[in-house]
Amino acid sequence: MKQSKVFIPTMKEEPAGAEARSHSLLLKGGLIKQSTSGIYSYLPLATKVLNNIEAIIREEMENIDAVEILMPALQQSELWEESGRWNAYGPELMRLKDRNGREFALGPTHEEVVTSLVRDELKSYKQLPLTLFQIQSKYRDEKRPRFGLLRGREFIMKDAYSFHADETSLDEAYQQMYDAYKRIFSRVGLNARPVVADSGAIGGSHTHEFMALSEIGEDTIVYSQQSDYAANIEKAEVVYSPNEKHDEIQSLTKVATPDVKTAQALADFLEKPLDETTKSMVFKVEGEFIMVLIRGHHEINDVKLKSYFETDNIEFATEDEIVNLLGAKPGSLGPVFDKDIKVYADNYIQDLNNIVVGANEDGYHLLNANVGRDFEVEAFGDFRFILEGEPLADGSGEAHFAEGIEVGQVFKLGKKYSESMNATILDNQGRAQSLLMGCYGIGVSRTLSAIVEQNSDENGIIWPKSVTPYDVHLITINPKKDDQRELADQLYAQIKESYQVLYDDRKERAGVKFNDADLIGLPIRIVVGKNASEGIVEVKRRDTGDSEDVHVDQLVNYI
Amino acid sequence: MKQSKVFIPTMKEEPAGAEARSHSLLLKGGLIKQSTSGIYSYLPLATKVLNNIEAIIREEMENIDAVEILMPALQQSELWEESGRWNAYGPELMRLKDRNGREFALGPTHEEVVTSLVRDELKSYKQLPLTLFQIQSKYRDEKRPRFGLLRGREFIMKDAYSFHADETSLDEAYQQMYDAYKRIFSRVGLNARPVVADSGAIGGSHTHEFMALSEIGEDTIVYSQQSDYAANIEKAEVVYSPNEKHDEIQSLTKVATPDVKTAQALADFLEKPLDETTKSMVFKVEGEFIMVLIRGHHEINDVKLKSYFETDNIEFATEDEIVNLLGAKPGSLGPVFDKDIKVYADNYIQDLNNIVVGANEDGYHLLNANVGRDFEVEAFGDFRFILEGEPLADGSGEAHFAEGIEVGQVFKLGKKYSESMNATILDNQGRAQSLLMGCYGIGVSRTLSAIVEQNSDENGIIWPKSVTPYDVHLITINPKKDDQRELADQLYAQIKESYQVLYDDRKERAGVKFNDADLIGLPIRIVVGKNASEGIVEVKRRDTGDSEDVHVDQLVNYI
Repeated sequence: MKQSKVFIPTMKEEPAGAEARSHSLLLKGGLIKQSTSGIYSYLPLATKVLNNIEAIIREEMENIDAVEILMPALQQSELWEESGRWNAYGPELMRLKDRNGREFALGPTHEEVVTSLVRDELKSYKQLPLTLFQIQSKYRDEKRPRFGLLRGREFIMKDAYSFHADETSLDEAYQQMYDAYKRIFSRVGLNARPVVADSGAIGGSHTHEFMALSEIGEDTIVYSQQSDYAANIEKAEVVYSPNEKHDEIQSLTKVATPDVKTAQALADFLEKPLDETTKSMVFKVEGEFIMVLIRGHHEINDVKLKSYFETDNIEFATEDEIVNLLGAKPGSLGPVFDKDIKVYADNYIQDLNNIVVGANEDGYHLLNANVGRDFEVEAFGDFRFILEGEPLADGSGEAHFAEGIEVGQVFKLGKKYSESMNATILDNQGRAQSLLMGCYGIGVSRTLSAIVEQNSDENGIIWPKSVTPYDVHLITINPKKDDQRELADQLYAQIKESYQVLYDDRKERAGVKFNDADLIGLPIRIVVGKNASEGIVEVKRRDTGDSEDVHVDQLVNYI
Repeated sequence: MKQSKVFIPTMKEEPAGAEARSHSLLLKGGLIKQSTSGIYSYLPLATKVLNNIEAIIREEMENIDAVEILMPALQQSELWEESGRWNAYGPELMRLKDRNGREFALGPTHEEVVTSLVRDELKSYKQLPLTLFQIQSKYRDEKRPRFGLLRGREFIMKDAYSFHADETSLDEAYQQMYDAYKRIFSRVGLNARPVVADSGAIGGSHTHEFMALSEIGEDTIVYSQQSDYAANIEKAEVVYSPNEKHDEIQSLTKVATPDVKTAQALADFLEKPLDETTKSMVFKVEGEFIMVLIRGHHEINDVKLKSYFETDNIEFATEDEIVNLLGAKPGSLGPVFDKDIKVYADNYIQDLNNIVVGANEDGYHLLNANVGRDFEVEAFGDFRFILEGEPLADGSGEAHFAEGIEVGQVFKLGKKYSESMNATILDNQGRAQSLLMGCYGIGVSRTLSAIVEQNSDENGIIWPKSVTPYDVHLITINPKKDDQRELADQLYAQIKESYQVLYDDRKERAGVKFNDADLIGLPIRIVVGKNASEGIVEVKRRDTGDSEDVHVDQLVNYI
């Protein structure tokens, strides 16, 4: 394609407000343009990359007998009421009414539609397993859209749904999809690793996320350098190996701690190490108040709490609720009280005795509180985030941390949707059974962004060959010179038979063309310059920067 | 692909409520499934056809240097306010608010977005011409969704937009796109012809629609059997050749016409031919009342009125307005009055004198009204629909009528959007000029439906080779017989190297498989039956129904 016909509005300056490397490069390279907050147009180069990514996805889906369909983005509220998500889904679900006042959601995901699609048609275990996928724009009204395509409000997803008569079949499909995802991410040039993840609000029992390592990931991945172990930090298990430093039990003492609001302030005030202090937090679990106790240097992990209590309905108690309940504000709370509030403590609380806790009186703490004597613990458990360097659950060594971008997820839904939406089949005994389901997603536009995040240098993008918008960038130094222009025209006609060629025929200065070429980042650059009359051109690799003079007769072979 | 892995929920009965042949066949063949009114899921076979149609469109777009992009479906209201369409577009525009109360439209078309996209980036005539296209789901809240995919609320469009510095360039792009559309429709197997169309509410100056001839088209096409002439009936010009039957002028006479409300009732009551009566209608043109007079056997064409008055703001006066204005209800109206209301008459009114008109008094008409003596006519013009058999505007003969489905449209927008949205470039004299634009659309899902509308028999669909979901349908009569199953397995492995094969491996009766195969309509059917042991299979063409026994050694060549 001649570059003069393509729309590539590159920028000379760094784009304002770009928070991520990929966001900046995609704007600067003229690949995307913001329409409004969290909503972008994909310009020609990005659209070509999307098409290439989608072609790879389609191939890998077909390899595992997944079949492509296309479901509507407009989803009537009735379906979401059946699954219970119409009310459960918050303001991220974009909603609208049609001309007759009927309510619709703009699909952020398609479990309801696909379940409704198959439930009338699948009657028997003989029709299973079945895996359907689609590639489509999705909608999620993010509170804070950011990082360009990484957290947008309209984005492209590949979503797949599988249907099964038994667990074995679901397990097989899950594993096939898991393997296909590994191949897809590898083929598109992404360093993405599967990590154990939390199943969260979507429900279900078993899930992996595929995380592309990057500087600006919104998720932290905990991984091993000795094994395959990798988990989202939300999910990474903390192993408890007792390391008790129990001193002689001392008597409970109230001390004034004026203006002490945080664990660190308390540690400083008492001249103790931070890890010998504690934090007490009040949560409302399905409407019932509980207190959770962790050590001062640890952070509470509400995903683990939700998993422990098997509910999504957990939130921090408000300050008003806390004052009402305990008579003190956050910062002075503790488990020593005469109330019907159950106390749950992180496992690592067991390593301490004579602990310091809030006195439930503003500006006061208690020293030397002890379990059993001063307060009861309903249960100890793993309620916190793992720390870097702590032992990993698989015994392979220390936890390492990396930032990651979630580019895919595989998920065993089980019967969550089939039960609520009444999707049953007859099993091989003739009994009605709820379908077993899996769901599987790849963020296609996010993958595009993650590829750029991982493949660039100070001059611009470095496209992997598998997804590059064009293979070859053909540039004339001075198209006004007949020999250069004629040779370039001839090479363009020749090379485009075998490769996708972007031919920079613009009447721009060579410097502008080279800068744009670096920014756009096609794998191979062919420069037709002063040696054109001898049939010699320069061939340069974008990734290594290596360049060589090549005679045009050898050119196609050389590439 | 093995048919047991594909989701093809064929129906044995005729689907209820299907109004069009394609609607019925797409449902019955398990290609689509309704989600809710006007909203469908495309199942695996339909998705494959869509992908094939889209691939052909992409090829033809690339051939004319149109470049693919992807713009958002969510369009902020601000853009539509700039163009003036936020208020002008009626309830067909689906609207929603985001979590911050900002208003959005779900794009039915993308003139605003694309104009906003390029106006910041295109500075000079040197960057032109430029043609951008996308393939995407669009939204239009039809008052009465019907005919399955033909008039849906969520549908797939290819839309393209071209940008130019001068008319010559726009004309060239328009012609290139026109030619590309002809190739596209021909390649997908559609008998579609370009017809002159009305430019309507979208504005602009010049447009053709591509109409697929069909039984159930929503549009009537007027065409010539002697020439290329074809026009939407909304636009088909009526030639006026005077054929005056003027009798001696008689005196104006009021007659009672009790209960006469229509032209036909008037003709019957007066014992006159219908074509010697007249109809008087009151319109509001940009708020001003006018009367239009046509003959009793003609039908008013409001598209021609809009074109004549160069405004979209024309509507029928309401009954209240009419009574208020003239003192009588519709059915007794006429041009004889003493009011400041201009009268426009269809050309063919000139053929009559001593005409009968309403008396502007309920239940009364006037006989022998004459222009000049009893009322004035502001202007005569072409204000009606052409009748079948009338002479065509190109002089090639009689008007023939056909029903058609609009599958594409090419359109010169001119400066409509660039002026209102301030998209200017510098021309070769360095002067700021509004961009010239063209817009071009193909209804992709509608094309799918139109292909089925035109390609079927009483047993089902007959897919054109270019878009068929699979090339070959491989069927075993009895897969329980080892020789049949083994031969079929072997053929499947062999043929799928060269062709897309659907292998019916289901444990269904042969009759069920044959019925499904006819319904699904793949071009070639290979049946492995009782001669399997001798390596002989039956090969049948779906289009002609011809079949022949072929030895497997010759099979791939034969296909």
